[in-house]
Amino acid sequence: MLIRNKIRAIVAAAAVFAALPAMAQQNQAADSVIIRKIYDNALTSYESYENLRYLTKKIGARLSGSPQAAAAVEWSRQVMDKMGLDRVYLQEVMVPYWVRGDKEIARINSPKSGGYTDVNILALGGSIGTGTQGLSAQVVEVKSFEELEKLGKKKVTGKIVFFNRPFDNKIIQTGTAYGGAVDQRGGGPVAAARLGAVGVIVRSMTNDLQDVAHTGGTRYADDVTKIPAASISTNGAEKLSAQLKEDPNLSFYMRMTCETRPDVLSYNVIGEIKGSEKPDEIIVVGGHLDSWDVGEGAHDDGTGCVQSIEVLRLMKDLGLKPKRTIRAVMFMNEENGLRGGLKYAEEAKAKGEKHIAAIESDAGGFTPRGFGISGTNNQYSKVLTWKPLLAPYGLHELTEGGGGADIGPLKGQGTVALIGFRPDSQRYFDYHHTVIDVFENVNRREMQLGAASMASLIYLLSQYGL
Amino acid sequence: MLIRNKIRAIVAAAAVFAALPAMAQQNQAADSVIIRKIYDNALTSYESYENLRYLTKKIGARLSGSPQAAAAVEWSRQVMDKMGLDRVYLQEVMVPYWVRGDKEIARINSPKSGGYTDVNILALGGSIGTGTQGLSAQVVEVKSFEELEKLGKKKVTGKIVFFNRPFDNKIIQTGTAYGGAVDQRGGGPVAAARLGAVGVIVRSMTNDLQDVAHTGGTRYADDVTKIPAASISTNGAEKLSAQLKEDPNLSFYMRMTCETRPDVLSYNVIGEIKGSEKPDEIIVVGGHLDSWDVGEGAHDDGTGCVQSIEVLRLMKDLGLKPKRTIRAVMFMNEENGLRGGLKYAEEAKAKGEKHIAAIESDAGGFTPRGFGISGTNNQYSKVLTWKPLLAPYGLHELTEGGGGADIGPLKGQGTVALIGFRPDSQRYFDYHHTVIDVFENVNRREMQLGAASMASLIYLLSQYGL
Repeated sequence: MLIRNKIRAIVAAAAVFAALPAMAQQNQAADSVIIRKIYDNALTSYESYENLRYLTKKIGARLSGSPQAAAAVEWSRQVMDKMGLDRVYLQEVMVPYWVRGDKEIARINSPKSGGYTDVNILALGGSIGTGTQGLSAQVVEVKSFEELEKLGKKKVTGKIVFFNRPFDNKIIQTGTAYGGAVDQRGGGPVAAARLGAVGVIVRSMTNDLQDVAHTGGTRYADDVTKIPAASISTNGAEKLSAQLKEDPNLSFYMRMTCETRPDVLSYNVIGEIKGSEKPDEIIVVGGHLDSWDVGEGAHDDGTGCVQSIEVLRLMKDLGLKPKRTIRAVMFMNEENGLRGGLKYAEEAKAKGEKHIAAIESDAGGFTPRGFGISGTNNQYSKVLTWKPLLAPYGLHELTEGGGGADIGPLKGQGTVALIGFRPDSQRYFDYHHTVIDVFENVNRREMQLGAASMASLIYLLSQYGL
Repeated sequence: MLIRNKIRAIVAAAAVFAALPAMAQQNQAADSVIIRKIYDNALTSYESYENLRYLTKKIGARLSGSPQAAAAVEWSRQVMDKMGLDRVYLQEVMVPYWVRGDKEIARINSPKSGGYTDVNILALGGSIGTGTQGLSAQVVEVKSFEELEKLGKKKVTGKIVFFNRPFDNKIIQTGTAYGGAVDQRGGGPVAAARLGAVGVIVRSMTNDLQDVAHTGGTRYADDVTKIPAASISTNGAEKLSAQLKEDPNLSFYMRMTCETRPDVLSYNVIGEIKGSEKPDEIIVVGGHLDSWDVGEGAHDDGTGCVQSIEVLRLMKDLGLKPKRTIRAVMFMNEENGLRGGLKYAEEAKAKGEKHIAAIESDAGGFTPRGFGISGTNNQYSKVLTWKPLLAPYGLHELTEGGGGADIGPLKGQGTVALIGFRPDSQRYFDYHHTVIDVFENVNRREMQLGAASMASLIYLLSQYGL
């Protein structure tokens, strides 16, 4: 049945193309020339790559509220200011400010199996600290919330709960595997604390076996005790799990001095080219300017930011006059609050702005595969008619469903279509939220191809609407 | 017209799928289950990755004739021997043996612009040395053979010719850009020597601006003086070109002690699963076991070798009984002679073997994009009917034309189709023929997906022929 459906879908899509009126076919011929120019320019300009170098190497990690986040706001404002856009402006937003404090310390203490074993952990964003003396307790390992519930208060009270469900490596799209594991990181502390746990460690969110830990946000609930929560490297998790089998009474020591400080004023940074015919119809392209406080926020989401700026640069440099307004938005605070995305949507609503599409690049600067589109059937069908223009550049996957965290809050405002740029997903979780998410792990051409892909789709959207 | 043709092609392909008889559709449903199992197994087994680790880290670089090449032969024989295949055997082949000697030294000497500047070069494979004193001469820069011809003997005699035509970065497939530049490396020494040059340096074959030089084979002609030839890193090439503009009389010093030694006995290594119904119909899957003598030959072509072995492992582990014979071939001496590929084809012909298809993986262990197929129209059309089975795994690009250097000599033997595995090409020339073509630059999942892609196509070929 799967195959038969696929065949039907392909026949249907082909019929759509074949049925295009001669006028549309002529337009496509002209559009294909423009799209070729977009790729030529993107692949031979070093501007987006040098922008990424500055953002990652000169500014670096930039968690919301940090001085580096402020530097990133001012830098991106200046970059867009010099581009001769129609408008560059900031949008005020109050953001949470969490600081990691000292480098974390963690070790397994198992007299029965090897004594002390140091392991790499990273406090989860938003976590409370352990106090400067650290926390030591026995460990219970679980793979799911159901398993935790079954253990019950008696076996959990006073313990550190170790969530150790790995990614399902059989899943081709790593983002889907992430989706199948990240509930542990987000929901672990509340579930564990309800049963009396004193701390939480979560297996890092990656397909790989690595020594580096992957941080990321977690949540507390107002009616549940807050307990310290950290991620542990996958190699560390494997060690801990193996030692627990030999010695269920081993203890785990963790020390974290992280804390949440008062909210800080920050900004979304917005640059705009006004549409020549329908300036009131807005197309957003964006990424998030904040990053976790480890590494350099290169793939997450430096590339999304510089690609969004590159879309505007390509329009200007090629002398394209988009009929509709194109707005590049560097959202603030995607990682630990989404305040920027919420603020943007709130103001759009308050001003009665008409967004026809929003495209987010927040899956890394990898080789492009396509776009995921959340919209009406008609909107999706219209995007599909552009497939012959996009497929020659490797954009074969124009799939239903997709978007991005920052653009998500726009959902339901008029008929805005939410579109996620889809780069190849295989390497993303090697780097995501780690010290190795650095400039050197971004390939220039892959990132440039992503920017060109986004610019090509946005060009079509700006000409023909949705 | 381009667009219209594309639409026609899509409509035609869709028509093929729709016209599949019900029986074929039922087969496809069953095949889709098996292909899913192939991917599940490949993505959760670490065997191919550990094989790659051994080949790159324990054996390392393995140029034809070297002790490491001999180790790679024995290692791959042992690996396949343990797999319970129907037959594992070696095929004798005499190979050239070129040795690099001391680490090369090269510097620009420009009193007018900066004095001495050290640059990275690598002797080209097959090059003669400079003698231990090295070679110093003035430099003429050219971008093409036409430009060189125009300079003529008067301006070239006694000089080092510097071929500096870069990759065309506008080309999406980097292999095509390579094809547009590599004539300089292969043909540079003969063309330069004909005009009296004393040496050649060639801009490294890469899209990137790097400090590492990229080696690779070059050629001499019997009737032309042999002169030393080296590649220079792209950053070095940019420096030299800039300094030449300021100071056309600068001199370039290079020292290389490479030499060609007598031919050495080596082997192709072959493992085979006999077909259950048509054992005489052979499907080859292969890569080349030799590598350049710098780096670890990870992407070129360690991944192709371990992926080919993995294809056999998957067949065994999943209990698939291919109807036709599948033969994994680790070819020897692709890099500087192709003697293994030539020998394999010669023996196949002498024995009257019937090869129906040969698939080579020699474009790196990157995320899969598809296959390139050189065969009859009917063969290509048959492969296209499998697209619905392969596209869910990102294999969208089943294109006409393709193959591989090692399988090339089989061309014309009966109706063998030559098929090249096509991984994404963007990062290949970052590493190709350099010290950084190492294990760490291979992503496990990308490599595993490649092996599963090859195994899936080969499974279909083994069931249905071509």
